[in-house]
Amino acid sequence: MELERAKGTKDVFPEEKIAEEEIVDTLKNVFKTYGFPPLETPILERFETLSAKYAGGSEIMKEVFKLTDQGGRELGLRYDLTVPLARVIATNPQLKMPFKRYQIGRAFRDGPIKLGRYREFWQCDVDTVGTKSVMADAELLGLAQEFFKRIKLPVVILVNNRKILDGLLESLGVSDSLRPDVIISIDKLEKISRVEIEKELLQKGLLESDIKGIFRILDIKGSNEKKISELKKVVKSSKGLEGLKEIEDILSYVKDETIVFSVSLARGLTYYTGMVFEVFSKNKNFKSAVAAGGRWDDMIGKFIGNKEVPAVGISFGISAIMDALKLEKRLKDVKTTTKVFVIPINTFKESFQVVKTLRSKNINTDIDLMNRGVSKNLDYADKLRIPFVIFVGEKELKKKKIKLKDMKTGKEKLASLNDAIKLLKKQ
Amino acid sequence: MELERAKGTKDVFPEEKIAEEEIVDTLKNVFKTYGFPPLETPILERFETLSAKYAGGSEIMKEVFKLTDQGGRELGLRYDLTVPLARVIATNPQLKMPFKRYQIGRAFRDGPIKLGRYREFWQCDVDTVGTKSVMADAELLGLAQEFFKRIKLPVVILVNNRKILDGLLESLGVSDSLRPDVIISIDKLEKISRVEIEKELLQKGLLESDIKGIFRILDIKGSNEKKISELKKVVKSSKGLEGLKEIEDILSYVKDETIVFSVSLARGLTYYTGMVFEVFSKNKNFKSAVAAGGRWDDMIGKFIGNKEVPAVGISFGISAIMDALKLEKRLKDVKTTTKVFVIPINTFKESFQVVKTLRSKNINTDIDLMNRGVSKNLDYADKLRIPFVIFVGEKELKKKKIKLKDMKTGKEKLASLNDAIKLLKKQ
Repeated sequence: MELERAKGTKDVFPEEKIAEEEIVDTLKNVFKTYGFPPLETPILERFETLSAKYAGGSEIMKEVFKLTDQGGRELGLRYDLTVPLARVIATNPQLKMPFKRYQIGRAFRDGPIKLGRYREFWQCDVDTVGTKSVMADAELLGLAQEFFKRIKLPVVILVNNRKILDGLLESLGVSDSLRPDVIISIDKLEKISRVEIEKELLQKGLLESDIKGIFRILDIKGSNEKKISELKKVVKSSKGLEGLKEIEDILSYVKDETIVFSVSLARGLTYYTGMVFEVFSKNKNFKSAVAAGGRWDDMIGKFIGNKEVPAVGISFGISAIMDALKLEKRLKDVKTTTKVFVIPINTFKESFQVVKTLRSKNINTDIDLMNRGVSKNLDYADKLRIPFVIFVGEKELKKKKIKLKDMKTGKEKLASLNDAIKLLKKQ
Repeated sequence: MELERAKGTKDVFPEEKIAEEEIVDTLKNVFKTYGFPPLETPILERFETLSAKYAGGSEIMKEVFKLTDQGGRELGLRYDLTVPLARVIATNPQLKMPFKRYQIGRAFRDGPIKLGRYREFWQCDVDTVGTKSVMADAELLGLAQEFFKRIKLPVVILVNNRKILDGLLESLGVSDSLRPDVIISIDKLEKISRVEIEKELLQKGLLESDIKGIFRILDIKGSNEKKISELKKVVKSSKGLEGLKEIEDILSYVKDETIVFSVSLARGLTYYTGMVFEVFSKNKNFKSAVAAGGRWDDMIGKFIGNKEVPAVGISFGISAIMDALKLEKRLKDVKTTTKVFVIPINTFKESFQVVKTLRSKNINTDIDLMNRGVSKNLDYADKLRIPFVIFVGEKELKKKKIKLKDMKTGKEKLASLNDAIKLLKKQ
């Protein structure tokens, strides 16, 4: 038998997982600071829920892992945390609104595999359900700013509002059904050439004059304030003006040079209804978004049956964040969480007591479990990059001392266990 | 459409998930103190791996969720974290031995549903791979003692060694192939009556005199030391004596009244080869084990192809731990991680700044996002059991003050924001 992983999956070894856990811990702390508690939903959902009309849509459904339980029930592995949240809200009317929660969990998509794209991956979502207030939108942008400040990754946050482009297209007479398609073309502005977008829009049935009108708006440059005031002159529909007002309000709460109003930003998913945003590393060489989100006021309500349940959310890309930090050389190269490795020299029982004392003082400690020689033990500690080693020898023990070695400098020091503990605590 | 969860799954709402995360954080801290870093493997494994001859066995395979990817490859959802660990060791010869790791992740079994038994559940494993040293066994018992001390759950740890019963049966002439079956009967001693066990053993082909011999051993009472010395007189086979020696050595490392040598303990899984143990709450009303484990020296080696790769591990039952704590009324009733809820009284912009300041001081803060009246806001904060409320009113703002209310005592206090922060930090 050849042992292999399932296609599109990966193992995360300790050195990488330690770094990932540190990022996840920082995320959780920021979420709690912003008043978001955790929620957990199962990975297995009924296929009926995942394929509901107002859930992921046909493109996603092609990639759902489907399975059947012993009772013949059709199940699927969740492809995001949004549909499960909608199910939770829809089936738990007792929940107090606004319902704020974060969820970090695995999601699955049986799609094509590219570099950095897996069939099983972490999803990390923060949502506020039950309020239309732009303060909820602003709060999520503030949360993103705070997190990226804490991990010291300089970012820019592109913000837009779906209503602006939609309102503009409305006033140009583009039909309701055609608009999402047109917006998808416009969203490609950063990826493909302007000529290609024009071609797409002509094919989709837009007039050349309309296309010019669209580009006139996309071309407005300058500060956020300038863009908004210029757009106010061009966008005449009430929907478009509503979108501009929302952007203005949000910006008044989170004034910060990291936030850039970008009228071409649409985001692929069609379920967004208002604000949309994407967070990028300031390093232009890193092109993937590290976080993104927006307002999705319709989906939950449609699950329930036309009740209005507004929601706004942000999704953090944990792998993208790690890759962006790596590029900045800001990902801590920890490799181990162990502080000190104890090498017994014919003193197993006594060494075990030394280890016990160190651990009781909350010093992360490991010990030779192979009964190996000193040089092999030093090699092991070095390979695992454990910063300190303690030798417990018979001679030293008689003097109630141990020998502490700093693996970086190579310096050794005879010390009492208490003094060694004090020293290790300071490091 | 009726929205339901998949059968055998559950949602974990914030109040419960907050308590669970606290336990998981404590577990992770203890693991790190003991020199165990995290590892992550995918939930999706190739069906071939999960059903390998030396993996879970036929009883478990009946309960595996099976699925197929787009390429027609047969996959399964992992049913434990042991088989994936064996795969990782078998396919990564570069790993330094001993390889210590913990893993916390979801596992799946499509089995019958009972109270507290789900088809999707947390698995939390700690293993040391690559050493036969009893110090590795002792280290895991010490780790268990430390964790249950930290969460203040009084426990008893029953310890045994497979070789003792096996050696005894060997000397009674019970055949190799029959022994696992006989041991499974003996393991039921705490659950079914002695007469029933005798009946089972007779059916399995044991002589009445042999059964008497077995019970004579099981009946030895007294301290661990006494049991060991009595058994040494009865158990004559070299295998059995080896098992007794191992128990003796382990106990010399972790002397503690919480550890009880129990010769009838076997543990269901047949892959254990040496030490086995189960951790129980001292409260006899709570019958499930809160942790368990043992030495499994054969499985990984058989995966690789008859190389010897010894291993010893412990598994923590996160739900069982929570239930045991609940019974002791020791599960913290936190309900929220939010410290203070800010109620703006016509002061949204200013309140948002107050919130920003509180959060920048690491005070977990929430704010009215619904533009509701004071009494509705107080009701919301009360339902979520947030311990403090801050009112930001226009009059108070002019004096550079806010009003801080302690929700428990009902007392209100006019204070500067700085003084309020100092007060909240102390709580």
